[in-house]
Amino acid sequence: MVDVIALGEPLVQFNSFTSGPLRFVNYFEKHIAGSELNFCIAVIRNHLSCGLIARVGNDEFGRNIIEYSRAQGIDTTYIKVDKESFTGIYFIQRGYPIPMKSELVYYRRGSAGSRLSPEDVDEKYIKSARLIHSTGITLAISDSAKEAVIKAFELAESRSLDTNIRPKLWSSLEKARETILSILKKYDIEVLITDPDDTKILLDVTDPDDAYRKYKESGVKVLLYKLGAKGAMAYKDSVKAFKEGYKVQVEDPTGAGDAMAGTFVSLYLQGKDVEYSLAHGIAASTLVITVRGDNELTPTTEDAERFLNEFKT
Amino acid sequence: MVDVIALGEPLVQFNSFTSGPLRFVNYFEKHIAGSELNFCIAVIRNHLSCGLIARVGNDEFGRNIIEYSRAQGIDTTYIKVDKESFTGIYFIQRGYPIPMKSELVYYRRGSAGSRLSPEDVDEKYIKSARLIHSTGITLAISDSAKEAVIKAFELAESRSLDTNIRPKLWSSLEKARETILSILKKYDIEVLITDPDDTKILLDVTDPDDAYRKYKESGVKVLLYKLGAKGAMAYKDSVKAFKEGYKVQVEDPTGAGDAMAGTFVSLYLQGKDVEYSLAHGIAASTLVITVRGDNELTPTTEDAERFLNEFKT
Amino acid sequence: MVDVIALGEPLVQFNSFTSGPLRFVNYFEKHIAGSELNFCIAVIRNHLSCGLIARVGNDEFGRNIIEYSRAQGIDTTYIKVDKESFTGIYFIQRGYPIPMKSELVYYRRGSAGSRLSPEDVDEKYIKSARLIHSTGITLAISDSAKEAVIKAFELAESRSLDTNIRPKLWSSLEKARETILSILKKYDIEVLITDPDDTKILLDVTDPDDAYRKYKESGVKVLLYKLGAKGAMAYKDSVKAFKEGYKVQVEDPTGAGDAMAGTFVSLYLQGKDVEYSLAHGIAASTLVITVRGDNELTPTTEDAERFLNEFKT
Amino acid sequence: MVDVIALGEPLVQFNSFTSGPLRFVNYFEKHIAGSELNFCIAVIRNHLSCGLIARVGNDEFGRNIIEYSRAQGIDTTYIKVDKESFTGIYFIQRGYPIPMKSELVYYRRGSAGSRLSPEDVDEKYIKSARLIHSTGITLAISDSAKEAVIKAFELAESRSLDTNIRPKLWSSLEKARETILSILKKYDIEVLITDPDDTKILLDVTDPDDAYRKYKESGVKVLLYKLGAKGAMAYKDSVKAFKEGYKVQVEDPTGAGDAMAGTFVSLYLQGKDVEYSLAHGIAASTLVITVRGDNELTPTTEDAERFLNEFKT
Amino acid sequence: MVDVIALGEPLVQFNSFTSGPLRFVNYFEKHIAGSELNFCIAVIRNHLSCGLIARVGNDEFGRNIIEYSRAQGIDTTYIKVDKESFTGIYFIQRGYPIPMKSELVYYRRGSAGSRLSPEDVDEKYIKSARLIHSTGITLAISDSAKEAVIKAFELAESRSLDTNIRPKLWSSLEKARETILSILKKYDIEVLITDPDDTKILLDVTDPDDAYRKYKESGVKVLLYKLGAKGAMAYKDSVKAFKEGYKVQVEDPTGAGDAMAGTFVSLYLQGKDVEYSLAHGIAASTLVITVRGDNELTPTTEDAERFLNEFKT
Amino acid sequence: MVDVIALGEPLVQFNSFTSGPLRFVNYFEKHIAGSELNFCIAVIRNHLSCGLIARVGNDEFGRNIIEYSRAQGIDTTYIKVDKESFTGIYFIQRGYPIPMKSELVYYRRGSAGSRLSPEDVDEKYIKSARLIHSTGITLAISDSAKEAVIKAFELAESRSLDTNIRPKLWSSLEKARETILSILKKYDIEVLITDPDDTKILLDVTDPDDAYRKYKESGVKVLLYKLGAKGAMAYKDSVKAFKEGYKVQVEDPTGAGDAMAGTFVSLYLQGKDVEYSLAHGIAASTLVITVRGDNELTPTTEDAERFLNEFKT
Repeated sequence: MVDVIALGEPLVQFNSFTSGPLRFVNYFEKHIAGSELNFCIAVIRNHLSCGLIARVGNDEFGRNIIEYSRAQGIDTTYIKVDKESFTGIYFIQRGYPIPMKSELVYYRRGSAGSRLSPEDVDEKYIKSARLIHSTGITLAISDSAKEAVIKAFELAESRSLDTNIRPKLWSSLEKARETILSILKKYDIEVLITDPDDTKILLDVTDPDDAYRKYKESGVKVLLYKLGAKGAMAYKDSVKAFKEGYKVQVEDPTGAGDAMAGTFVSLYLQGKDVEYSLAHGIAASTLVITVRGDNELTPTTEDAERFLNEFKT
Repeated sequence: MVDVIALGEPLVQFNSFTSGPLRFVNYFEKHIAGSELNFCIAVIRNHLSCGLIARVGNDEFGRNIIEYSRAQGIDTTYIKVDKESFTGIYFIQRGYPIPMKSELVYYRRGSAGSRLSPEDVDEKYIKSARLIHSTGITLAISDSAKEAVIKAFELAESRSLDTNIRPKLWSSLEKARETILSILKKYDIEVLITDPDDTKILLDVTDPDDAYRKYKESGVKVLLYKLGAKGAMAYKDSVKAFKEGYKVQVEDPTGAGDAMAGTFVSLYLQGKDVEYSLAHGIAASTLVITVRGDNELTPTTEDAERFLNEFKT
Repeated sequence: MVDVIALGEPLVQFNSFTSGPLRFVNYFEKHIAGSELNFCIAVIRNHLSCGLIARVGNDEFGRNIIEYSRAQGIDTTYIKVDKESFTGIYFIQRGYPIPMKSELVYYRRGSAGSRLSPEDVDEKYIKSARLIHSTGITLAISDSAKEAVIKAFELAESRSLDTNIRPKLWSSLEKARETILSILKKYDIEVLITDPDDTKILLDVTDPDDAYRKYKESGVKVLLYKLGAKGAMAYKDSVKAFKEGYKVQVEDPTGAGDAMAGTFVSLYLQGKDVEYSLAHGIAASTLVITVRGDNELTPTTEDAERFLNEFKT
Repeated sequence: MVDVIALGEPLVQFNSFTSGPLRFVNYFEKHIAGSELNFCIAVIRNHLSCGLIARVGNDEFGRNIIEYSRAQGIDTTYIKVDKESFTGIYFIQRGYPIPMKSELVYYRRGSAGSRLSPEDVDEKYIKSARLIHSTGITLAISDSAKEAVIKAFELAESRSLDTNIRPKLWSSLEKARETILSILKKYDIEVLITDPDDTKILLDVTDPDDAYRKYKESGVKVLLYKLGAKGAMAYKDSVKAFKEGYKVQVEDPTGAGDAMAGTFVSLYLQGKDVEYSLAHGIAASTLVITVRGDNELTPTTEDAERFLNEFKT
Repeated sequence: MVDVIALGEPLVQFNSFTSGPLRFVNYFEKHIAGSELNFCIAVIRNHLSCGLIARVGNDEFGRNIIEYSRAQGIDTTYIKVDKESFTGIYFIQRGYPIPMKSELVYYRRGSAGSRLSPEDVDEKYIKSARLIHSTGITLAISDSAKEAVIKAFELAESRSLDTNIRPKLWSSLEKARETILSILKKYDIEVLITDPDDTKILLDVTDPDDAYRKYKESGVKVLLYKLGAKGAMAYKDSVKAFKEGYKVQVEDPTGAGDAMAGTFVSLYLQGKDVEYSLAHGIAASTLVITVRGDNELTPTTEDAERFLNEFKT
Repeated sequence: MVDVIALGEPLVQFNSFTSGPLRFVNYFEKHIAGSELNFCIAVIRNHLSCGLIARVGNDEFGRNIIEYSRAQGIDTTYIKVDKESFTGIYFIQRGYPIPMKSELVYYRRGSAGSRLSPEDVDEKYIKSARLIHSTGITLAISDSAKEAVIKAFELAESRSLDTNIRPKLWSSLEKARETILSILKKYDIEVLITDPDDTKILLDVTDPDDAYRKYKESGVKVLLYKLGAKGAMAYKDSVKAFKEGYKVQVEDPTGAGDAMAGTFVSLYLQGKDVEYSLAHGIAASTLVITVRGDNELTPTTEDAERFLNEFKT
């Protein structure tokens, strides 16, 4: 039994060894990723236990995901090998056409991961956890995956959700808006993780204070509002915290938000205040963007501590 | 207008930088491949012109295929960018579980390449060519692709076919057998390329002489019978030629058969006898297996000449 | 027949895999470059057609240049294989002794490329183009190359010239000054690309306004004045535009000026105003310096658009 | 509780990226190894469970060993983090001065791994297992490690031992002889793994039949006698089996013996006969020598099956 | 006979190819380093001769150090091959947990280098040199090494010392303080190199002026006070110089201080004033941090000149 | 003063990281080579001292050659930096069109190395050595280099010559024949190194016995007759020795002959008989062909000993 459970699709990432359009890249570096898997690792680095409910294909990439998850301390009991489909993968194009930004090219349609379904959600397992986490990605990849999240949220003691709207995965932004808002309406969300782009889609506002007010109305208790390179904000009750981003050499920003979310949520769950949790979240996202790979540099609580004390930009 | 036209799916290949199960491979090397594209390059290295009828996605990997094909001298006029789908890719696992052998992991279901269809086959273009080539892979990837081959064969002056039965691509071996045999029955094949494994499936024989006799009955004029590391045989009328394989350090055997086929067919088309064409075909396949990548080492006629004169195993 | 034709020497570039003095570099990464080839690729990325008049050796590096050019869409009809000489190459030492700067080590004396001569310049081809481009490098590498430029400029409808004075290629700066000034005097230049260092040599002024006034007197219509990391200026009639450079992580600045020049000229030719053309030129040079390789990251018009809208430094 | 338990020192391996004297090698590839860890992975690939009793340092390399072991399915409950010392490592020099052979350079004296001691051996854990395994290396690295093996053997239901005499680790060959012989005398060994070199030291014989006779007298039930590239033999009661080695391209022979031993022992434990177990052992060692890394290519029972059916040398 | 002699342990460095915790790094790049060896190379690049008194093991890494030192022009006459022990090595973890900072993991306890002893110090050799240099590292690695420094300082005409307190190498900071202060008391130091962290430990002050005053009282003539990324200061008599650091892309800061020290000391020895020596020192440290490897980019006097004239941050 | 002196051009080698036509190779690995430099290193590994008389350019590659030579123990006193020209380089294309064979592409015409001239040959230095070595390459690269060899041979106590006819470097084979034969006529050659191809050109015979008889008539005392992969023969007086080649995995055969020659000559000079010297020569060439780089794996006498005792093919 674990403290936190995440539901989502773990993926194999092929990161460009050199920057630029993929057709000019000769070598690709393999990493294991996926928003919820990244979240889980952040949770574990902050000393809570975490399980991932997911499916992978009966292939080398599926085995890779399970072995990596196990190595990193994730409870893999509920990562199911689905013999009917393949493990989803994606490629990362870095630095083109926007320097320090990445573009993702997915091969995941119909993947084992997208076949996640309510039957994969074990009631006892869910009920034993303190918090259930998922993201807008899981809500988008298939109806059955969405239903799995709903089942888990239904049974959950508390919930966190990262809106994470990836336009390529939704038939329309309208569909994204509807789906996510209906979740927000239906369930009290302990921690909502989002940003101005997603909030524009969901609520047609971008101002953080407005956003918080509106999300709060839907039963969101804590809001983590990511502002990209500028930093992030966090709201809880009357507390409003802001932590500026650090200026570092960016290799690949992919995964930064997941590291921040997992760090924030797990520290918050352990009773840390939002300022502390936010600062650690920023430390995590800052480290993650300095390398290829989404979760290898997610710091432990102690290492984030050192970062916050010693790093001078 | 070109001498030879091939129909099939070009793919982006991600070849393992190190041998072993894919989950232990950290780096992947990108190459451009696909059986018919490999064939085309062999044709061109032997100084005939060649065009490829195909579809790629509207993405970096599709652009990569077109640019590489153009670089290698392939006529890309009929490589269509299909905005509805993605470019097919595959991974190569080398040396496990069989040393010197490779396993292919495809991400091509529903790809742009598999959407090749009769509408892509331009009558005038086909009629202007001396020979139309395709493979059992194209017959397997979709009904529309199969129909495209049939349309082209219908219009063709002469034809070559590589049976190339990849079990993973067919719903059943029975289906493969039926489809290929019906093509053999319907059209006179100038050059058939096959091997004992495929012939076992198709005709339930493996002995080369038996195979030749039976294929000949279906209207096959020339048979190129590949024997793996042992070499290959060629039959035409009463001529029966055998060329032993060369012993070299194998890096990746993928693509060797295509290089042999394209070399053999293009030399044969230029009036070379089967012994000469076969020897050059063996030179081509030998070079191709010494590296990662399916077609970079396919030799020109002159370089194969040097190989045959100078190489002592 | 093409919109733009450039004359110059394409080269094979061996870029240091790691920074520092070449003697400490163990691995070198091959790219295809050359100022005019880089210019051509920028023209094509902005949707005009472009041909290169050039010579390469009858060797693998020559074939490499032709294949790469063809892949990138350059009209290679007039890239001649010169059997009397070899293909020019160069090495790039990065980051020493000046961080973020590169030093070039050429092996091009007597190369096939430097044997470019008036006989390579086809009158009909030249006359069909809207603009002929060359650089101070081509004027420097040999008398016959210089004569080829003069012949082309003589026949041209309009011309662009990048002064590009590389002291190592000239016997003296005086010689560079004389040669370039005589060209400026003799031919109306539609777009002149230069910078303070070259202008100091040519006109003994560095102030942009002074430079523009003086160049204008020689018949220059539009001036693109590059200011390195600071950005660039453009003048046309009474318009004076300035675009600040973006701060990015520099990998290798080589080729940035060519990308800017080709982008600017091709957009200008399509009727874009100088501000627009300049901004796109800056987008192009900014992307190019973030990587090894001179032209792979030169953006299409649409991608530069995205860069200009989305990139926050 | 697990089927098999091994005691020994896991190590981080730095394998030369290129062959030759270490001073000419610029890049090193990290792998996780150690004779008993390799053995464990072979056991697991053959579908028994396996635990490793060991110590690692409180450092990144120690964490690396634990995470890798966990990923591969090893029970890591009894891998203890010893804060008093560091994790042992070694470098592999390949192909010099003997092609296809490797030399090992250790940094392990005083390592955490060598501090393995009887207190690390849990009686209940040992008693629950079907077989306890160790090697001459563990007997050599420290007195406390030797005592740990003795304690475990004392409590064990059955035992396997790989003599594995590494002269660099012993003060003298005489000491090695004495230590190992005293173990053989004291405990019935279910499976002894050794080779002519070690047997020469231990018994002053090399002939396999003589060796078996003598080992049998000490209570050895099954003998696996490794003959390097020539293959291996196995003896049990009146059965004497020989399996010839396969000829493959050798990258690094390190770890081959461990893969063979773990495969043989685990299959034997599952009731397979010695011929079957030996053939699978040879398949495992053959695959392992084709790559850098000691255990990544150790095959599952099913993959070894395929190897034995399909591999033609 | 040489101008400058340094005493210390040369080491083989294994630098992470990618950033992050060592357990996630797959490839390591070998360099030759060690504080005093780095210092020597800086001296030589500034055109004085330099010898290193040191021990290495009788192994490939020892040979590597000697060959590299010889290549770089170091007098290796007094680098002794000690057959009793091994060559010390270390690993560099980059960018975790602090971006742009490195952590060092040593395998040097009991190394040949730490066995440096007074018997290695040749009186005539020492007396012929203009300056003897060592560091707090050499004082820490063993008593015999410390005694070797003391013997050399006793015989020296003049001395430079870099306090370089590495907490991991000392039993306590108190011990470091005592040892270094006793050296400062006993010998006039021509140039002391230190920083606020070390000065805090030694004198319990950090303010540069206070530090200079106190060090001066101990007989220090010139103080080079390193301020990390902020730059450095130098004091001599009434002169107080400050040179701001340059902002560059940091790859690995290791070795920067040694390059600055060796550059400063060797220029000072040649009669350059402290401002000039300091500026060159900053140029050297700036270049060194842009790459992996401690000394390859240490500039010659002329290249530092170019850096100082041409580098715009 | 040294035992052996060689005259020739050291070169920087850029070896293809992957096999195949150079245009498909993306990465190149730098090595230091040149026939006479390779010879020198073999001499030193066999414990004689060796100097190289040569010129390099005043550039990084020249410095690289000097530093590497110094590192390997070559006396570099007479490697002159020629400011008038550049350091020669070459590229190695491996495995195409002949597997396990390499093709060399030189950029050395007019190089500093080819400007070697009699003025570089110091009489005292030459007279102090026991043997002077050069090759047909040095005789081919320029008249002045040839004259330098003649001057040195004139002054030499004894001489070795490797015929090493590289057709690309000679205006005609006739010219090669004349030049080398005139040397053979004029000077007694202690050891002649050659092979059937060169002997066919020189004497129009290929049979080893015929060759020896004829060479002997020209004053050759010892003949080392290289037979490629088959091995080599050596003749001295009535002794005729043959040593079969070892079968190993070939990476790049370049430099194998030089390693064999330098090993053979240096052992012969130390009084070893031809069988011993030949066997060691074969050990050296066998090791060299297993890697990229011409001289890194050239074994010491002791390591060759181990090779000859332990290597089983």
